[in-house]
Amino acid sequence: MEKCSFNLPDVQAGKPSVPINLTRVGVTNVKKLVEIKRKDKRPIVLISTFDVFVDLPSDRKGANLSRNFEAVNEILEKILSLPVYEIEQLCSDIAHNLLGRHEYANQAEVRMKSEYMLKRKSPATGRDCQEVVNIFAEASAVRGDQATDYFDVKKLIGAEVIGITACPCAQEIMRDKAATELANLGVEKEKIVTFLERVPMATHNQRGRGIISIKVAHDFDVSLESIINIIENSMSSSVYEVLKRADEKMVVEKAHKNPKFVEDCVRTMADNVVKDFPALPDDAVITIRQINEESIHRHNAFAERVALMGDLRKEIKGQ
Amino acid sequence: MEKCSFNLPDVQAGKPSVPINLTRVGVTNVKKLVEIKRKDKRPIVLISTFDVFVDLPSDRKGANLSRNFEAVNEILEKILSLPVYEIEQLCSDIAHNLLGRHEYANQAEVRMKSEYMLKRKSPATGRDCQEVVNIFAEASAVRGDQATDYFDVKKLIGAEVIGITACPCAQEIMRDKAATELANLGVEKEKIVTFLERVPMATHNQRGRGIISIKVAHDFDVSLESIINIIENSMSSSVYEVLKRADEKMVVEKAHKNPKFVEDCVRTMADNVVKDFPALPDDAVITIRQINEESIHRHNAFAERVALMGDLRKEIKGQ
Amino acid sequence: MEKCSFNLPDVQAGKPSVPINLTRVGVTNVKKLVEIKRKDKRPIVLISTFDVFVDLPSDRKGANLSRNFEAVNEILEKILSLPVYEIEQLCSDIAHNLLGRHEYANQAEVRMKSEYMLKRKSPATGRDCQEVVNIFAEASAVRGDQATDYFDVKKLIGAEVIGITACPCAQEIMRDKAATELANLGVEKEKIVTFLERVPMATHNQRGRGIISIKVAHDFDVSLESIINIIENSMSSSVYEVLKRADEKMVVEKAHKNPKFVEDCVRTMADNVVKDFPALPDDAVITIRQINEESIHRHNAFAERVALMGDLRKEIKGQ
Amino acid sequence: MEKCSFNLPDVQAGKPSVPINLTRVGVTNVKKLVEIKRKDKRPIVLISTFDVFVDLPSDRKGANLSRNFEAVNEILEKILSLPVYEIEQLCSDIAHNLLGRHEYANQAEVRMKSEYMLKRKSPATGRDCQEVVNIFAEASAVRGDQATDYFDVKKLIGAEVIGITACPCAQEIMRDKAATELANLGVEKEKIVTFLERVPMATHNQRGRGIISIKVAHDFDVSLESIINIIENSMSSSVYEVLKRADEKMVVEKAHKNPKFVEDCVRTMADNVVKDFPALPDDAVITIRQINEESIHRHNAFAERVALMGDLRKEIKGQ
Repeated sequence: MEKCSFNLPDVQAGKPSVPINLTRVGVTNVKKLVEIKRKDKRPIVLISTFDVFVDLPSDRKGANLSRNFEAVNEILEKILSLPVYEIEQLCSDIAHNLLGRHEYANQAEVRMKSEYMLKRKSPATGRDCQEVVNIFAEASAVRGDQATDYFDVKKLIGAEVIGITACPCAQEIMRDKAATELANLGVEKEKIVTFLERVPMATHNQRGRGIISIKVAHDFDVSLESIINIIENSMSSSVYEVLKRADEKMVVEKAHKNPKFVEDCVRTMADNVVKDFPALPDDAVITIRQINEESIHRHNAFAERVALMGDLRKEIKGQ
Repeated sequence: MEKCSFNLPDVQAGKPSVPINLTRVGVTNVKKLVEIKRKDKRPIVLISTFDVFVDLPSDRKGANLSRNFEAVNEILEKILSLPVYEIEQLCSDIAHNLLGRHEYANQAEVRMKSEYMLKRKSPATGRDCQEVVNIFAEASAVRGDQATDYFDVKKLIGAEVIGITACPCAQEIMRDKAATELANLGVEKEKIVTFLERVPMATHNQRGRGIISIKVAHDFDVSLESIINIIENSMSSSVYEVLKRADEKMVVEKAHKNPKFVEDCVRTMADNVVKDFPALPDDAVITIRQINEESIHRHNAFAERVALMGDLRKEIKGQ
Repeated sequence: MEKCSFNLPDVQAGKPSVPINLTRVGVTNVKKLVEIKRKDKRPIVLISTFDVFVDLPSDRKGANLSRNFEAVNEILEKILSLPVYEIEQLCSDIAHNLLGRHEYANQAEVRMKSEYMLKRKSPATGRDCQEVVNIFAEASAVRGDQATDYFDVKKLIGAEVIGITACPCAQEIMRDKAATELANLGVEKEKIVTFLERVPMATHNQRGRGIISIKVAHDFDVSLESIINIIENSMSSSVYEVLKRADEKMVVEKAHKNPKFVEDCVRTMADNVVKDFPALPDDAVITIRQINEESIHRHNAFAERVALMGDLRKEIKGQ
Repeated sequence: MEKCSFNLPDVQAGKPSVPINLTRVGVTNVKKLVEIKRKDKRPIVLISTFDVFVDLPSDRKGANLSRNFEAVNEILEKILSLPVYEIEQLCSDIAHNLLGRHEYANQAEVRMKSEYMLKRKSPATGRDCQEVVNIFAEASAVRGDQATDYFDVKKLIGAEVIGITACPCAQEIMRDKAATELANLGVEKEKIVTFLERVPMATHNQRGRGIISIKVAHDFDVSLESIINIIENSMSSSVYEVLKRADEKMVVEKAHKNPKFVEDCVRTMADNVVKDFPALPDDAVITIRQINEESIHRHNAFAERVALMGDLRKEIKGQ
């Protein structure tokens, strides 16, 4: 689907019969191997899926889609030769490159998603665990007044991490039942209170998926590792690939001592975003989402907050 | 995950430890059987997947999620008893009902998607065909000044339909080759032109997916059937479940006489939306998207226009 | 892709250049609306996905695929006019019809899958719940000695149902902790035992998916409802669309009083298949599978038994 | 879900209440980073998804699932230190390791699937292309007479590759139309024949997916690259990530000069398996499958051959 150019009419460069401009023209579901060197760490290798777009003016029939691959490939080649590179920068660099290639376009947009492998240790016995998380990024660039003068406007970085959530409401019911049964057996109230502090009661628990995305101006650095850490620490407990018996005890106990609704997970993530990203500008757009694959239902529970960083700060400080 | 109410503290009604409000709290991936009676037609039966949300103020720990099911079920029961009902109205009616049930919420939002079966005839031999399309709808409602005074603000209706698209650029190349070969064989130029008018040359063609969504104020009626018809008629040809030989000839010939880029499909849809919805208000938000599952690539080609109806009208009339 | 028959060579009927026979030729992912009347019940409406195949001899280039649709459509029309029909019979009837249409085929095979809506009541408050389960069926038919003499050989019926499973091992650990803490607080051993009998301790629990398929000779009737009931009753508890507070207590308590590994779920299903299908022939092939979407891991736990009914009977009676 | 072993009863080692053996117990959807060094080539890095099982005797309640991770991790560590390793061997090595860890198991089974990146050049202009294919492998091992004496029995290697297929039947119709139109214009029959030999006529074409799997005794080497090459070369044409105008011409022309039904693709693959794997034993099980995502339908066309290598050889040599 490339420019028809030597002795044939260039079909894409012709006039369209319906002369409206298009918001996005490009390719989706493009899979690429991405290799990134990092300071003092092993290189990262990702299989990433890219969507790559430019806009199209009303007087041009089609975009030259093979140029999108040239832009992606040139950047992926370039970063292979760099000693250090941040994955957060990848989509911006491709969007920049796109505007240089599509002279008729005013805007370029790139989206990327990958599976990303984390190294973790199981909590009690320290076994090596590989944990897969989903990461994603987007960037857009807009051409300036001069044809050769363009700038990145926004980029978005985010991750989705799986953890365990335990329901506070059902646990409250089970605590009440335990208290009643112990009282019926003649156990003193004070001992009951102590027991229930030490031993968390049963509740339904399930896989939860926490998602954070942060949209900022392109020259602001957002750490993907920080985003992943925040999500991991905002559910009832992290989950692990390998759990020996002592590890499993620790995860189950931690999750049950830390019960959370979907709503609580989102609010905890919001709180930690405010704490861990003090330099984030007030106009950064924060999207925080939690989806619990309820063990007592076929459907999922869902909560979301979409907010400007400044509003989140005000709400949390005002508490 | 229901209100803890009789002799235990109502956990959801408590204060959250991080007092921020939430944009959306609810349930997702809820599957329901939806039965709708229509004037002079057989009733529609759908298996629909619903997402149902309300917002949550900063002083409330959790939403009572079982009320979301009560809202959905009450509306689905009610429409069973109505002689006529338009599926386009379903999400608005549920959103309305939600605000009555969640006294602490100011906004309610409902999303629905379904597979929907169309009856069609194959183009030459008239065989009965069942064609499945995807339909979707969304609605949101906002509470007014008084707690009991609420109104729907926006609703969105849309569909995704599969068709065939044939590439104009590769066809131009093949036409050129055919013209050259015929000229080399001594065929007169005039006959070559006539031949190429009558017989469309080869090109790559593929499954395309056209998508239109229209977002309007809740009291404006948008016909889902019109949306589906526009998408079906904006690719190189419709596709069919059953094609006898004469039908297959007709589809292949039609598609090759009507080659279209992804860009062309979006522009044709835009043109037809302007023509077929003359009453749509200028502030309706129109999203038009085409995805071609390219037969010559592993990736897809994509084009999209997002616009206000008024802008689409101006651009198309100004041509 | 239909027979090229009037004045052109019939391409499909030609000789293939590599003359080997093919095990299966046909169409997949065909979606059809299926309506079935039942005795004393409301009709069932399903959106089913069909795969429809015949074999192909080594001297024939292609199969006439549009005949597969004619076979499916003829059967779906016919059952509309029948007062009672069993969905379990559908694939066999289509396979039968296929052999009549494909004179060159010796074997026909049909597979179907659907979402199926069950009506249930929540366990404590009796709320109406719609529960979606996945059902599937397969049938094959083989031609006999005479071209017109054919018979169905095998059919398979099955379902996948979601429930909740609670882990026995982690619960054992938490019971031990509870016993130790109560003993430390001076509670008598006997009271501890009574308490732990009455109040089930915490453990991780999660969505589980139980699957049973039964393959029998075509003239043996297997009840899909019985299969669904067995799966529902073989996990720690059923799950429900709507749970008010008293319902949620009942589900959480039942699941925790009935902890089950994936292995236990499979064995319970096997036990119930033997009990509930006393008439099933010994040569029926039973596949029983449980997949738990572990709340403490990103991966799933899995167990499966594939056995002849006769072997299952022997193993279970021999216990 | 690990062995409860120090001062608590080992729950998994207990007796099950329904004493039947289980065919497979294990973990599914386990994602691991796999790094493999190759002779004279860059190392391969894959994100692979593993399913890892052992069987379970009737007198044991549960398997120790964390051992499955220890087996996978030990092998993945080991191959990091090897100078050369064949990915085809990976599942066998893990299955072997599993039997050493699960002393109660008689059989171990490992399945793996990955996306795998190929480097290709576009056919005319030689642009660098990355093409993603799906690869998969399985192995099973069975314990011998002695507890410490075990052997791998079978392994399976396979791949799924996307290409383009053009329909011969619709092309025949279009050729006929072209011949008639040229004859009507007074072009001589001989010139028409020459023209139609040089310029392939239009037809519907689409993404096709070819799949081959080969099951052999564990000590027989099957080359994954050979399998991928066979699939790539058995459709109407390969597809490419980047196609400049001259490349696109070449792909479209090649595909249209080489039209193929699903049936033809399967037979071509069978022919090439026989030619390219002369050393494969006669009892190897070959599964060959083609799925065409028809551009003129919403459903897919499908063909499959499942055969012993010996039978394929006989059928093809006997032609």
